[in-house]
Amino acid sequence: MGGVTCFAPGDSLQSIQHRFLQADLRGAQKPLLPGSGMGSGCSCSVSTYGGFPDNDPLDRPPLDFAATESFLQQSMTMILEDAVKKATDVRQKVCEWHSPEELKELLDLELRDSGEPEARILERCRDAIRYSVKTTHPHFFNQLYAGLEPYSLVASFITDALKPSLYTYEMSPVFTLMENAVLRKLIQIVGWEEGGDGLFNAGGSMSNMYAMNLARYRNFPEIKELGNSAAPRLAVFTSQECHYSISKAAALMGIGTKNVFVVPSDKKGKMIPSALEEQIESLKSEGGVPFMVNATAGTTVLGAFDPIDEIADVCEKYKLWLHVDACWGGAVLMSNKHKLLMKGIHRVDSVAWNPHKMLMACLQCSAFLVRDKTRLLQRCHSARASYLFQQDKFYDVSYDTGDKSVQCSRKPDAFKFWLMWKALGTSELEQRVDRALAMARYLADEITKREGFRLLMEPEYANVCFWYIPPSLRDLPDGPVLQEKLHNVAPVVKERMMKKGSMMVGYQPHRGQANFFRMVVISPQVSRQDMDFVLDEIHSLGKDL
Amino acid sequence: MGGVTCFAPGDSLQSIQHRFLQADLRGAQKPLLPGSGMGSGCSCSVSTYGGFPDNDPLDRPPLDFAATESFLQQSMTMILEDAVKKATDVRQKVCEWHSPEELKELLDLELRDSGEPEARILERCRDAIRYSVKTTHPHFFNQLYAGLEPYSLVASFITDALKPSLYTYEMSPVFTLMENAVLRKLIQIVGWEEGGDGLFNAGGSMSNMYAMNLARYRNFPEIKELGNSAAPRLAVFTSQECHYSISKAAALMGIGTKNVFVVPSDKKGKMIPSALEEQIESLKSEGGVPFMVNATAGTTVLGAFDPIDEIADVCEKYKLWLHVDACWGGAVLMSNKHKLLMKGIHRVDSVAWNPHKMLMACLQCSAFLVRDKTRLLQRCHSARASYLFQQDKFYDVSYDTGDKSVQCSRKPDAFKFWLMWKALGTSELEQRVDRALAMARYLADEITKREGFRLLMEPEYANVCFWYIPPSLRDLPDGPVLQEKLHNVAPVVKERMMKKGSMMVGYQPHRGQANFFRMVVISPQVSRQDMDFVLDEIHSLGKDL
Repeated sequence: MGGVTCFAPGDSLQSIQHRFLQADLRGAQKPLLPGSGMGSGCSCSVSTYGGFPDNDPLDRPPLDFAATESFLQQSMTMILEDAVKKATDVRQKVCEWHSPEELKELLDLELRDSGEPEARILERCRDAIRYSVKTTHPHFFNQLYAGLEPYSLVASFITDALKPSLYTYEMSPVFTLMENAVLRKLIQIVGWEEGGDGLFNAGGSMSNMYAMNLARYRNFPEIKELGNSAAPRLAVFTSQECHYSISKAAALMGIGTKNVFVVPSDKKGKMIPSALEEQIESLKSEGGVPFMVNATAGTTVLGAFDPIDEIADVCEKYKLWLHVDACWGGAVLMSNKHKLLMKGIHRVDSVAWNPHKMLMACLQCSAFLVRDKTRLLQRCHSARASYLFQQDKFYDVSYDTGDKSVQCSRKPDAFKFWLMWKALGTSELEQRVDRALAMARYLADEITKREGFRLLMEPEYANVCFWYIPPSLRDLPDGPVLQEKLHNVAPVVKERMMKKGSMMVGYQPHRGQANFFRMVVISPQVSRQDMDFVLDEIHSLGKDL
Repeated sequence: MGGVTCFAPGDSLQSIQHRFLQADLRGAQKPLLPGSGMGSGCSCSVSTYGGFPDNDPLDRPPLDFAATESFLQQSMTMILEDAVKKATDVRQKVCEWHSPEELKELLDLELRDSGEPEARILERCRDAIRYSVKTTHPHFFNQLYAGLEPYSLVASFITDALKPSLYTYEMSPVFTLMENAVLRKLIQIVGWEEGGDGLFNAGGSMSNMYAMNLARYRNFPEIKELGNSAAPRLAVFTSQECHYSISKAAALMGIGTKNVFVVPSDKKGKMIPSALEEQIESLKSEGGVPFMVNATAGTTVLGAFDPIDEIADVCEKYKLWLHVDACWGGAVLMSNKHKLLMKGIHRVDSVAWNPHKMLMACLQCSAFLVRDKTRLLQRCHSARASYLFQQDKFYDVSYDTGDKSVQCSRKPDAFKFWLMWKALGTSELEQRVDRALAMARYLADEITKREGFRLLMEPEYANVCFWYIPPSLRDLPDGPVLQEKLHNVAPVVKERMMKKGSMMVGYQPHRGQANFFRMVVISPQVSRQDMDFVLDEIHSLGKDL
């Protein structure tokens, strides 16, 4: 086999490894980059196989780890500079706006037959970063996540490089145990004294779907095999302020969006438990079968917390599964000062909680927790694939978590949270939540003080919803005319802030009210000055309207 | 506000940026790491707010970007060394096996009140890497993915740092367009001349679920609102060799696993179209309503390709949605030499294709493609959340893809594939596929030649399934006794290779046959020598059995 290493049957690993060491000295390590390695430029003479020519591309290619290493080094330096340092720098833009048509030209998106040199690829990376929104920028307030968490980021990098997948313990021993440790800790914080079960998954919408599927399975296990056409008309209850994923889950799961009953909320956006009970009674009297209530802890727009304790009373009375969508609000459980917002959480059946939101783990980091201790999660979702979940393994297969999931490959997202938790400790996580809520309080007070700003309601969490009223509208009396004019203010201010790149804040209409801004305060990297900046900037962008 | 920067209403961004520049010189950049920054060690005097003390934690914390940068630098160096370079080094172990109990002790998983210093966190990262399976190692053959793709890895790092999410164009302009470009290219390769639609999502199981939901929605759009209890008994057809996610989707979607009809496959693992037609007729005669056929291109265990063209004839005849689960086998479409395996693919309604498998994009990278041009994907999944998908935006909202998805946050996985495609070109992707299949062919031939190895069947793709028969069993006649003894061989060899850490190869029972090995050949980083090594090593580990 000429200049490359080969093995004979019966070689021990040691002797092979030894030979690799030798081979490496001669330059026989594997290349990771194409072109520079495999199939090109190899001048060694090798034996042929089955019609393959000399210089056989199936033989070990010559060394080019150096090229790969150099590319990765350069990339990492660039990422640190452009995607971390500059992206989080308050002096830089949050975004550099281009219309889809312009951006298509700037990016040259077409995929061609031949590849491009490394230097060009590095430029493409720089461009991708440049034209992307900097969600870690101190003036990014557009979604329910923000800021940079360096420990979590490092954990993401590690999992990218290792490419683990969480089906089995043998495939992901470390991350299986870490997921388990994080889940146990979260379950303890939720307050389920007898423990529970859970998994991290691809997002809060998925968690809510898991809850709905478990709730259905507990009550009607036969639906797994027979489908909903063999079952009565099932009904889910949720508040009018809930996340749209409840509806999406009902559609996907064959329950139907019309069987999601929307319970009125009070002025603060909290579900009214008596209204819930009325709706349940009413549905039952029509022959419908309620099986689940979804309560929300931290609604998307208003940041409202449904009264879990009172809803739990109703659920106990009617024997309904109580799920809490705490994707956004779950973080208050870390805070002794604020956890009363979720009073009663220990009584519920399942919880969705996304540490990638308020707690700033890198995307995605979404936990689904269930109080059940009877392997419901596994029984509900298992398909017992024999190629993956063999029962004749040499270790305790109860550590194989894959059959609990509707996914097959599943990323070890818990690691991102585990590592930052180890670094920060529970106490720092608590301080972050307290600080964010104090900051939201500061912002709300500023809004109250300033002319031309009006709060939609007092915040109890990190959502601060408000209108900006330009000087030209300030003398108008409250009423349809003002509302109509006000409705057009936020979209224009949003357009201007995007085009200027100075910040990103969301807006929306809501329950027939004119478009208003929703500020979301998360990051320990923002300050009162940033809050002031947002209000100043909105005024500056909208005062001529 | 003492020593920190503040703004007055009416300040322009420019003047503020200028002041930040000044402030930065005085050390007023934001810290990203706790402890070293916010709330501790700040000696500047600041004004008070609402009862907050001097030295207010809500004010901008003093500079500590340097600490963050240093931590990230050290981490990246470590990742490159341990998780890339060592992990892909053939002289290193694929895994360092420890039982769950041992590993728990080694990892110290508990999450505590106080945090740990950086140096300890770096050690924890090192340990996480050390005890993890090296899926990029040349001797990792355990799953349908393997190897390291550096371009794709860099794209992953970038998205980790930027934290984009694909709901709206304004949030992810670059990645929205890149996803679109990759989808269009894949659709072109599939051969849908009039175009199509699609999205990247959290995995192949999800893609198959999307297909099932679209198929149901096209035939029974009312189910979205009313649920399956208002519909007849719907039925899905798939081969006995299909992935278990078809069953999981039917369970989750309220269709029911018993309404997934399993069509027999031939000896090569391919669905028998006449058997499909018989089953459809039989179900219809019982009043069931077929709505979808799932064909598999590259089955999980055998790597078989269902005859798409003939199945498409049946589906046309009965007006059924034809989905192809090509998560694993879709890569043959890149190869002029092998794409005939998927003859007829242009006739199907939807395709699941995971570039993270044979094409080596980093995990996850899963495309779902649909031939429809009537916005079926959007209509089927939309919930029209007004806080996210405002219709009064200043750009063309048809670029907002979020309402096509059952997820809310969605990662820009297409970028990982786009970047490597740009770097490699279509031609290199084609060569990789051809090389992997040539390598599988080499391995199969070696197995045929070697004493004690027996092929289950001739491979037509990259799965090579075989038994190893230890010397003690070689004289036994074929029959139940041999089968029973053989059944115990693979699990023991697997245990031994894991404990030695020399390689990872999967095994499974299948259709009543004794446990056999399934080798999966993917990476351009493996060579004939690695194939030989696998066979030598299996013999070495199992010859005493």
